[in-house]
Amino acid sequence: MPAHTHYLWFNTNRRQEIIDITDEVAEQLQLSGIREGFALVSAMHISASVFVNDHESGLWQDILRWLEERIAPWDPTRYRHNETGEDNAAAHLRSLTVGHEVIVPITDGRLDLGPWQRVFYGEWDGQRRKRVIIKLLGDR
Amino acid sequence: MPAHTHYLWFNTNRRQEIIDITDEVAEQLQLSGIREGFALVSAMHISASVFVNDHESGLWQDILRWLEERIAPWDPTRYRHNETGEDNAAAHLRSLTVGHEVIVPITDGRLDLGPWQRVFYGEWDGQRRKRVIIKLLGDR
Amino acid sequence: MPAHTHYLWFNTNRRQEIIDITDEVAEQLQLSGIREGFALVSAMHISASVFVNDHESGLWQDILRWLEERIAPWDPTRYRHNETGEDNAAAHLRSLTVGHEVIVPITDGRLDLGPWQRVFYGEWDGQRRKRVIIKLLGDR
Repeated sequence: MPAHTHYLWFNTNRRQEIIDITDEVAEQLQLSGIREGFALVSAMHISASVFVNDHESGLWQDILRWLEERIAPWDPTRYRHNETGEDNAAAHLRSLTVGHEVIVPITDGRLDLGPWQRVFYGEWDGQRRKRVIIKLLGDR
Repeated sequence: MPAHTHYLWFNTNRRQEIIDITDEVAEQLQLSGIREGFALVSAMHISASVFVNDHESGLWQDILRWLEERIAPWDPTRYRHNETGEDNAAAHLRSLTVGHEVIVPITDGRLDLGPWQRVFYGEWDGQRRKRVIIKLLGDR
Repeated sequence: MPAHTHYLWFNTNRRQEIIDITDEVAEQLQLSGIREGFALVSAMHISASVFVNDHESGLWQDILRWLEERIAPWDPTRYRHNETGEDNAAAHLRSLTVGHEVIVPITDGRLDLGPWQRVFYGEWDGQRRKRVIIKLLGDR
């Protein structure tokens, strides 16, 4: 059973940002030659997410605002973690809520996504080098 | 390594609804003949979830109320996404919170779930045709 | 394609607790001999989580407080589920938010985690025996 592994690197201009990485995942699938299996796409950091949702810029703004207003406000004074000298406890909580990985099914050599599904990297504490692993497992 | 793929279709009467799909997943496992591996159960839509929890109707009501009151109120005026003519931004945020997929382990030819664990489809914007993919990977 | 299955048992002193289980997962990987594949780590209960985040005790306190104050207050009077005689509906909602499983990639015979990533069991309703399944799938 062949496996194929690739690391994507990011260094966002903004501290919070949502990036569509579907094409990068599809490219690795093509390189791997895998026809049936699973594609794991997983952030290698504890202040970022990988998720499947909609390619619509209004929604991306909604997600960023919702994370700030409803899920985990950035405000560093709220959190014990920030006593370590960090200020990014909220980024950790956002990563826990949205999740840090997805599994995309591979069928007939393509990503078996629904018509509106795309794969995104959610950077919750950026402006530095971060990494996502794409790991494909299956049969050629 | 054999793979087995099946698509479940839904068209719920209510806009939000929770449906137990464990038996459908177990049926596909039996058809596949797989003895050891992973079962991916994944919504193919960005306004739905798949999750593992408890078969208890009071809890399902709790989940629907909690999504509305605490996680992401439906109110379309709150969201930029709804400027596109949609009114379902909240369904997207609920999908992000609860997740859109699970992996169930397969051991000795059965779904290796805990005593109270069941697999659910969570419809957050229904009354139209939606789909879940069941994809099994492993050894016979 | 070999599979390797192991069950971890817990019985926490406190009702809510966060436990680092990375070493236990790595030990099973070594026993399995798998070099390339996926490690599924999944709670077998509906009132617990498995997640990847940071080994930092201040953050663990932040997570427990955030679950209580922002995500799902324990208060049993809020929930229909608790009419069944249970008082743990909040634990179910916390499990849905944080998730009950992760997939860790296996590369070159090791857990392919980022530098700060560790695997945790999150007990949201403990003081009784609970279980996590570790299931590895891949190639030796």
